[in-house]
Amino acid sequence: MTQINDHYLKLTAGYLFPEIGRRVKRFCDENPSAKVIRMGIGDVTEPLPPAVIQAMHAAIDEMGDRATFRGYGPEQGYDFLREAIVEHDFRARGVDIDPDEVFVSDGSKCDTGNILDIFGPDNVVAVIDPVYPVYVDTNVMAGRTGPAIGDGRYEGLVYIPVTAENNFVPAIPQQHVDLIYLCYPNNPTGMVATKDMLRQWVNYAKEHSSIILFDAAYEAFITDPEIPHSIYEIEGAKDVAIEFRSFSKTAGFTGVRCAYTVVPKTLKGKTLTGSEVPLHPLWNRRHCTKFNGVSYPVQRGAAAIYTPEGKQQVRHLVDFYLTNARLIREGLQDVGMHVYGGVNAPYVWLKTPGGLSSWDFFDKLLAEAHVVGTPGSGFGASGEGYFRLSAFNSRENVEEAVQRFQKLVS
Amino acid sequence: MTQINDHYLKLTAGYLFPEIGRRVKRFCDENPSAKVIRMGIGDVTEPLPPAVIQAMHAAIDEMGDRATFRGYGPEQGYDFLREAIVEHDFRARGVDIDPDEVFVSDGSKCDTGNILDIFGPDNVVAVIDPVYPVYVDTNVMAGRTGPAIGDGRYEGLVYIPVTAENNFVPAIPQQHVDLIYLCYPNNPTGMVATKDMLRQWVNYAKEHSSIILFDAAYEAFITDPEIPHSIYEIEGAKDVAIEFRSFSKTAGFTGVRCAYTVVPKTLKGKTLTGSEVPLHPLWNRRHCTKFNGVSYPVQRGAAAIYTPEGKQQVRHLVDFYLTNARLIREGLQDVGMHVYGGVNAPYVWLKTPGGLSSWDFFDKLLAEAHVVGTPGSGFGASGEGYFRLSAFNSRENVEEAVQRFQKLVS
Repeated sequence: MTQINDHYLKLTAGYLFPEIGRRVKRFCDENPSAKVIRMGIGDVTEPLPPAVIQAMHAAIDEMGDRATFRGYGPEQGYDFLREAIVEHDFRARGVDIDPDEVFVSDGSKCDTGNILDIFGPDNVVAVIDPVYPVYVDTNVMAGRTGPAIGDGRYEGLVYIPVTAENNFVPAIPQQHVDLIYLCYPNNPTGMVATKDMLRQWVNYAKEHSSIILFDAAYEAFITDPEIPHSIYEIEGAKDVAIEFRSFSKTAGFTGVRCAYTVVPKTLKGKTLTGSEVPLHPLWNRRHCTKFNGVSYPVQRGAAAIYTPEGKQQVRHLVDFYLTNARLIREGLQDVGMHVYGGVNAPYVWLKTPGGLSSWDFFDKLLAEAHVVGTPGSGFGASGEGYFRLSAFNSRENVEEAVQRFQKLVS
Repeated sequence: MTQINDHYLKLTAGYLFPEIGRRVKRFCDENPSAKVIRMGIGDVTEPLPPAVIQAMHAAIDEMGDRATFRGYGPEQGYDFLREAIVEHDFRARGVDIDPDEVFVSDGSKCDTGNILDIFGPDNVVAVIDPVYPVYVDTNVMAGRTGPAIGDGRYEGLVYIPVTAENNFVPAIPQQHVDLIYLCYPNNPTGMVATKDMLRQWVNYAKEHSSIILFDAAYEAFITDPEIPHSIYEIEGAKDVAIEFRSFSKTAGFTGVRCAYTVVPKTLKGKTLTGSEVPLHPLWNRRHCTKFNGVSYPVQRGAAAIYTPEGKQQVRHLVDFYLTNARLIREGLQDVGMHVYGGVNAPYVWLKTPGGLSSWDFFDKLLAEAHVVGTPGSGFGASGEGYFRLSAFNSRENVEEAVQRFQKLVS
């Protein structure tokens, strides 16, 4: 009989967000009149920017005319998009990235999972705890961990805890690790990384010949000019880091699907026999063999984000969500809660009141305030006793949720 | 230093189509005035059906309005699309598939590669030779083969040759294999599978508890009422087969990106300890963890294919390409060439004239007739001495290419 990939059997429970979905659905089925406000999954609520809408309509019209129709595009993305990305996301910040180093894809979730294909099974992997579950689950699936060990952790992974006790600053590992996931602005804590902090990680990676997998999906929310938007703003990072970027939260593309990954040509790994090989051709091969490019109208929509109107509209969107984040943060602080993040990020991370466990607080908040958040423990053992609220919502819902929240904990 | 996936180093040369692209680019750079007709890559040329254009425009307008905006959709696809698929592609042909068994994706290339994630490393894999290169390359990457052995083959894979000598009918293996790729209508040969032939494969898979990976990307081109469109038209196939479908060639979606995979809930594999587990939850977990759903406007476009207007427009498109295929087939037969396929499929497979190797004929055809085809050897050792022509082109180009071809070989 055909053998399955047994590593899948190690995965505990469902992926976090489907589990939230199930609990919310059950509650709504049992309480059909409750007006539930969803601040759990980090999903945008505002419409696409007009520049994007216009560009996508134009692209679809092109697809309806034989003279301008486009079939397969380059797997790595059209030049018009790769060049706009390089120009506006990197060169404008003094970072030299070649368009060939940019791989356009249908999402950072896909990319952060798929990137593991090009790495060997015996690499030691480090994640910050709490962590975006995809980093962990995809390593479990790839066999880079042992079994689950009870608190949501897996044997063999290196967990670097961040809690209020260490100001959410992950300690540089004492041991050797080969692959390090860093996500800044951070999901779920909403904290950011300073240049100095990233410099330490880049130095560590250089000393250990490790690779940093840098997830910058939330960089658009950075307003503090001192905070780097890309890890490549740190000298030497192009020798040690792969960066993931997404249009999901920047321009409301969660349902449209576009992202990109930067694999610098200077990045290297080693073979089993110890020789050094560049990673860029490996990822290019993976991308060309198991992927067929992003939908053409979607790429046109993404490119429109970089036009003057597009930029202004995106800024407006981001500011809207950041104001939501401020209202949540301040509203909860007003009733004495301990809150973190939510300044250069769309997520507010809070300590659950009364020492409740994350899931107990989830259930209480849903049952009594009809507000959905994300249990911190769903992001890892060190997230236990914490809770994430997302600023992706209408202003009206945010204000209403804050009021209900205040009433619940007062 | 971070270890790479050494299996990637086994991959020989580039993926076929980029290699063709390089040779064509070099020729065009050196011969800028040559009017090159491209019948190499199987890419569509006709515009999207009006029903699709209309549905995509409407979906984009929804995305521009807060009241109708959609963020993350279900990873498996929207119900409106999964239900239309089940209704029109299966129930209409007497096949009972549950919408939950349908996983909407951004392409069959992705799906046929990604499906390997859920299977263990020690399965024995069989492919028909010649074969769509993605089946082979993704198994090489996953470590399910040994090194390349010179003629484009890899150690450890089971190759089942189809040539004119066996009428392109693959022999049922004498040995045990766990995973079997079948693609019908076939890429590259353009041949179809009869019910009787598929029944033998289903019986083999039942006896051996193997899984058939059935790629039906070209099913829309079947006009012969005796030829099955889905492997599930064979009794018992739901216990042994995963089916891949695509809108790429059906409705011209190569640049739009939409496909789907059917994983029946009755399908099972075994764990290392020998217990049986269903494959459906494994693939669901993979799909939810490493994928985030297909672009909403694209799913609306795909659903429009199943409306009465959409169906008629798709029929018209398919007929157009089938007429091209007939013109190629007949045109080459007229000058005494041996041609196969091209009846219920958009590909014509031919024996190269004068005993030329596939790549030599590629170079000759490009240099002397300015026509691009695909060397049969690029699809596998048994494709050596054969050549694929694609019917995806304008009528004018097809007529012109046939004339040039006739002149070349006469």
